[in-house]
Amino acid sequence: MSFKEELMQRLNEKEERMIEIRRYLHQYPELSFCEEKTAKYIADFYEGKHCTVRTGVGGNGIVVTIDSGKPGRTLALRADFDALPIQEETGLAFSSKTPGVMHACGHDAHTAYMLILAETLSELQEYWQGKIVILHQHAEELPPGGAKAMIADGCLDGVDNVLGLHVISSLKNSTVYYHAGPIHTGQSGFKVVIHGRAGHGSMPHETHDAILAASDLVVSLQSIVSRRVNPFEMTTLTVGRFEASGASNAVNGQVVLEGDVRTLSSEVQSLVEIEFKRILDGIALMYNVTYELDYRHNYPVTVNDEKLTNFVADSLKKSSIPEVMEVLDSGSQGPSEDFAYYAEVKPSCYFHVGAAPKDGQFYPHHNGKFTIDENALLISAKAMGAVVADYLEKYQ
Amino acid sequence: MSFKEELMQRLNEKEERMIEIRRYLHQYPELSFCEEKTAKYIADFYEGKHCTVRTGVGGNGIVVTIDSGKPGRTLALRADFDALPIQEETGLAFSSKTPGVMHACGHDAHTAYMLILAETLSELQEYWQGKIVILHQHAEELPPGGAKAMIADGCLDGVDNVLGLHVISSLKNSTVYYHAGPIHTGQSGFKVVIHGRAGHGSMPHETHDAILAASDLVVSLQSIVSRRVNPFEMTTLTVGRFEASGASNAVNGQVVLEGDVRTLSSEVQSLVEIEFKRILDGIALMYNVTYELDYRHNYPVTVNDEKLTNFVADSLKKSSIPEVMEVLDSGSQGPSEDFAYYAEVKPSCYFHVGAAPKDGQFYPHHNGKFTIDENALLISAKAMGAVVADYLEKYQ
Amino acid sequence: MSFKEELMQRLNEKEERMIEIRRYLHQYPELSFCEEKTAKYIADFYEGKHCTVRTGVGGNGIVVTIDSGKPGRTLALRADFDALPIQEETGLAFSSKTPGVMHACGHDAHTAYMLILAETLSELQEYWQGKIVILHQHAEELPPGGAKAMIADGCLDGVDNVLGLHVISSLKNSTVYYHAGPIHTGQSGFKVVIHGRAGHGSMPHETHDAILAASDLVVSLQSIVSRRVNPFEMTTLTVGRFEASGASNAVNGQVVLEGDVRTLSSEVQSLVEIEFKRILDGIALMYNVTYELDYRHNYPVTVNDEKLTNFVADSLKKSSIPEVMEVLDSGSQGPSEDFAYYAEVKPSCYFHVGAAPKDGQFYPHHNGKFTIDENALLISAKAMGAVVADYLEKYQ
Amino acid sequence: MSFKEELMQRLNEKEERMIEIRRYLHQYPELSFCEEKTAKYIADFYEGKHCTVRTGVGGNGIVVTIDSGKPGRTLALRADFDALPIQEETGLAFSSKTPGVMHACGHDAHTAYMLILAETLSELQEYWQGKIVILHQHAEELPPGGAKAMIADGCLDGVDNVLGLHVISSLKNSTVYYHAGPIHTGQSGFKVVIHGRAGHGSMPHETHDAILAASDLVVSLQSIVSRRVNPFEMTTLTVGRFEASGASNAVNGQVVLEGDVRTLSSEVQSLVEIEFKRILDGIALMYNVTYELDYRHNYPVTVNDEKLTNFVADSLKKSSIPEVMEVLDSGSQGPSEDFAYYAEVKPSCYFHVGAAPKDGQFYPHHNGKFTIDENALLISAKAMGAVVADYLEKYQ
Repeated sequence: MSFKEELMQRLNEKEERMIEIRRYLHQYPELSFCEEKTAKYIADFYEGKHCTVRTGVGGNGIVVTIDSGKPGRTLALRADFDALPIQEETGLAFSSKTPGVMHACGHDAHTAYMLILAETLSELQEYWQGKIVILHQHAEELPPGGAKAMIADGCLDGVDNVLGLHVISSLKNSTVYYHAGPIHTGQSGFKVVIHGRAGHGSMPHETHDAILAASDLVVSLQSIVSRRVNPFEMTTLTVGRFEASGASNAVNGQVVLEGDVRTLSSEVQSLVEIEFKRILDGIALMYNVTYELDYRHNYPVTVNDEKLTNFVADSLKKSSIPEVMEVLDSGSQGPSEDFAYYAEVKPSCYFHVGAAPKDGQFYPHHNGKFTIDENALLISAKAMGAVVADYLEKYQ
Repeated sequence: MSFKEELMQRLNEKEERMIEIRRYLHQYPELSFCEEKTAKYIADFYEGKHCTVRTGVGGNGIVVTIDSGKPGRTLALRADFDALPIQEETGLAFSSKTPGVMHACGHDAHTAYMLILAETLSELQEYWQGKIVILHQHAEELPPGGAKAMIADGCLDGVDNVLGLHVISSLKNSTVYYHAGPIHTGQSGFKVVIHGRAGHGSMPHETHDAILAASDLVVSLQSIVSRRVNPFEMTTLTVGRFEASGASNAVNGQVVLEGDVRTLSSEVQSLVEIEFKRILDGIALMYNVTYELDYRHNYPVTVNDEKLTNFVADSLKKSSIPEVMEVLDSGSQGPSEDFAYYAEVKPSCYFHVGAAPKDGQFYPHHNGKFTIDENALLISAKAMGAVVADYLEKYQ
Repeated sequence: MSFKEELMQRLNEKEERMIEIRRYLHQYPELSFCEEKTAKYIADFYEGKHCTVRTGVGGNGIVVTIDSGKPGRTLALRADFDALPIQEETGLAFSSKTPGVMHACGHDAHTAYMLILAETLSELQEYWQGKIVILHQHAEELPPGGAKAMIADGCLDGVDNVLGLHVISSLKNSTVYYHAGPIHTGQSGFKVVIHGRAGHGSMPHETHDAILAASDLVVSLQSIVSRRVNPFEMTTLTVGRFEASGASNAVNGQVVLEGDVRTLSSEVQSLVEIEFKRILDGIALMYNVTYELDYRHNYPVTVNDEKLTNFVADSLKKSSIPEVMEVLDSGSQGPSEDFAYYAEVKPSCYFHVGAAPKDGQFYPHHNGKFTIDENALLISAKAMGAVVADYLEKYQ
Repeated sequence: MSFKEELMQRLNEKEERMIEIRRYLHQYPELSFCEEKTAKYIADFYEGKHCTVRTGVGGNGIVVTIDSGKPGRTLALRADFDALPIQEETGLAFSSKTPGVMHACGHDAHTAYMLILAETLSELQEYWQGKIVILHQHAEELPPGGAKAMIADGCLDGVDNVLGLHVISSLKNSTVYYHAGPIHTGQSGFKVVIHGRAGHGSMPHETHDAILAASDLVVSLQSIVSRRVNPFEMTTLTVGRFEASGASNAVNGQVVLEGDVRTLSSEVQSLVEIEFKRILDGIALMYNVTYELDYRHNYPVTVNDEKLTNFVADSLKKSSIPEVMEVLDSGSQGPSEDFAYYAEVKPSCYFHVGAAPKDGQFYPHHNGKFTIDENALLISAKAMGAVVADYLEKYQ
């Protein structure tokens, strides 16, 4: 049997272990930058295996190096492991045990398949040449993200290329997707605190109503995407948090808003910031309120290396993985990824595994009812494994 | 010396004690329905004094009866003692020691002056006939309020009339205000939970944005007061709480709104509810969201008895209290009061003491910077005391 | 028979003529400041009657003096005769013959009853002393109104008092209403031209959308009444005209808005102007548009003289006009009136005649379906006639 | 000299005539479907020339056939000639002499260059084989457009391919742009009449304010593009007309809105209609108004034939026209074109000529200050001429 055949067969045999690991992680999600237990779980997994483990890389990151002892390329594989501040509503038996925290983006799946793939690659090291570096990355969900700090802490030293993948609940089951060029959006984030003048509900004329001002702001911000950006440019602006607590019978003097902007070009990223401030200034003037604004360009656009991506696509197509029905060009994708930082430093490729539940009803990522079909675990392991095998063979 | 003269002189001598009590209470505010320590403080105050104290009346309420032993009318005096969920920002040396809770409505002052007035009336019981009942009421700020439960628990049994007063930071210092007929608004409250469909910020078309829907609701609700109610009718509608927490980069699937409506007629109270629901239904349709609504008519309009109020006004005018420069008709007032419930059962009169800080800069009630001029304590004690003295003399 | 009895009887006999005149005028409405034909019709009516007619007073105004030849007071009676730019939709047989112009405010009725009343007073001049001056006023509907110019042209010279009345479609039939003090609101008007940047609908990012900016302005202006004015103050703000014509597929670069503000105090009149400009400036900033604003305080509050109004109310009550079921205090009324200018110069009284259609279904003034019950003509003539008779008798 | 060389030289010599014709047409613009004089001008131009002219094709359209008498392909060239309901504000000496009507889209330039090109092709008919058909099309700006009717009237009978071009004020001067596939958006149009309840400005509670409802509609419609359509899909929605005339002091009972939607896919075209109706229904419910809606899908997406477009691009590049600095892929363009109908029937190619004024300051199409650099006339003639020459040579 060839290395790839051997790899595929072992992955087949380990499917249940992947699912177990994924379900375990799903029950114990941890927020970005707080993934201490998950990190320990990952490090413990490698104990006694043929590899070196470096923990605490740029925070909770873990770098696992599997060295074949033979010369060759060094290929890095990245899997992220943080969770989201979302209350799980799936009703699954293995639901999150932490109220308000949930693996609602599939990072549990990424970690589960990657642990098993890494273990198997390590078992089969005699088959291949070069080195494989597993980047178990913390804090993908929360800017500034973990990738930047892991890079600063040397995780890409000596690495030639980086690969990564994401399971996607809204993409067709049994399908793998690639795209050369811009694959993920750049992301900006904003936090606005609006200060009005609080007071009694029956005396609105002696107050400046911060909730009304902030509400009008949310409505008016819609005009950025609808009227101010070139309609051929993909752009989103979301206010995802709006907090104004207090007595229901008092005019509220303070609101905190937080939100998110996605674009596929840095020019639009800048334009949206200018228009955001223009609208905010107008609202402040209209409602006699003041504000503090923290507006940040968090993530650049993730650009897949053209040559490497063509290699990945070819490998996926010719590998004829039985569980993969189709290999398709996905076009650019809306979410942002701090994988962008790896791709800025090394030629990289990030691709996607369709994980829509087989009943056809899916919930989007970051939704309390988000779930994936667990066959995506084996597909992810095999797809990434096949590409790794072809890569290592080609560059041996 | 007459009873009234003796009373006034003793109150003069006790001004510092009133201030001490008020500052103590100000440091230890307790939220409505949670005023256990304050209630204990009040009950303890009366220990050893010539009166009977009934605690736990309708909750944390306390009823103190001072019986002259002579036949006559029974006059009840009401003072409230709960605080608000507001973060104090006054910078006062005796600021609240409880984060997020504050006496931002002056109930500390009400309790302080009333304790000293009650003590003094008790000391002077030989001077007067009949009974005085002190209603130390909990939970004025939070519907359903404490008055209803205290009445149900018998606090008005045998009572002929009820008096009460409020210090007001925005009314002229050294001035007492009365008004016959509707003195305080009726109040309705609403709580709306809006359910959308959460999801990733870059895929808004797969979500139903609850924050956008709720923001548009807040803006659209302005049209109730501006266009749907007779402009000759006093009406306010305030959204005082807007909570949508969660990740800043996710479209939020849920918002909780709470708010408050004030009117001077029950017809308008009903009309506002109808229009509120009409707008909410329109928003739900527009944005493809659902909602749960809890809309309550909490407090009726507080109506001052015409005859009793004229008596109060005359008494205040003829008493010539040196600290009171003017006695004026205030017209109707915007806030609501669960004093309304006493006034529904017994002929009652509720009046106001101007307490604007002498430097002319005031902050409205329910504001983190709310403060009063402490000379309002002595003025309150003397104004109420003078009316009590005249009342007891007249009806002896 | 007394003068009043004789007057009432003759008015009874002339009811059909009033109705004829009213229906004629209704078919030939003329816009404010363009009432040439109506003015001629009025002047012609008096031909050959015992009175002097002065035309062209302050524009299209007509002043008719009926001099008894005997000494006494001079009492002025005012009736207005202009119509509105509204398309009639009543379906009445005597509907307006001029498209887009309609007597939708009842000035046809005012003129009809007044002509017959004046004729009858003239016939009965031997019965009374002093002088009666009929003020047929043009241009009540359109600022600056006709009253100001008629006063400047001497119409009040020698006049002691002024009376006027208005039929009201929404007030109870067979009822006459009075109110001492502020009877009609003061009125401000505004015209805003918003200049954006026009362009092709498919390139919104190269334009500044004036229609969107103006629409947001209309929505945001609601917060003036809902949040910025003391809720105890009657205030309305209406945008009554919004014009942005042009190709449906182009982003529009210009919008013209016009509107109207009513208040019962000059302080609020000023406050609304300040807040209007604040909101307009905010909108201009938000949407990158410019504007021209013409904001005018057109009419002051109309204040009824207390003594004269009490006289009118007493007269109405004691006259026992069979068609008048009740005489009630109306409180202040929302519309504005350039009768305010007469009342600023002479002690005056303006009162109202309920004219709701007997089937109970009414349309408000300035609505294309506005109509009155024609029994209001006789009631108006008799009510005004009775007051005139009592006045002339008292002051003879 | 080759045919192409001879053609280029003659066009050089006729540049001034093109400019004269364009300036003449610019002064006498005619609205879509009313272009009688322009049509006559065009037909007269061909008098005595070697060609056949058919007028009144599908309305005001004109089809000119230049037959070489030799066998070969039949190539159609389309130029449109209607103008827009826009008031010219350019200040040009040859400005529109018709108030409110303007060639603000460059159709004057299209007609001018095409007349001269057609004349020259006719002069040079001995050089080439086959037939050239000139489609002088009326009514491009106003749905349903002239193309559909001209096709129904046989204008494409026997035609093999169709070419057309547009001058664009916002694209780089001296540049020609091509794009294979979808080149112009599909377009939908809507007209909404909102019926409220009119009334007096001081009694808003007795009215349903149609201007407020329509304004809120305009604001809320922004959420279609911002939140309801896939952000990767080009979409615009413009309300271009908002008419509510009447008295400034009356609440307006009726508003007429018209607008425009552009998309690059028919699925989005349908989705926008659904969401439009959802929002409109929500507004009607909220504001208690009714509406009539006319929503039409006017133009399909214009799709350039891939093979023909590649031929055009190659021809433009290899022709080395001295005035053309660059030949670029433009990507899809936002405007819609009823050229789409020709492209549905015959393999067609529509391309663009950059016509930005050389001073760098441009105004968008459909703007009252729109203007082009007149060197675009010669460039258009030469670019189209070069392609025609290459085409006729290839397919001879």
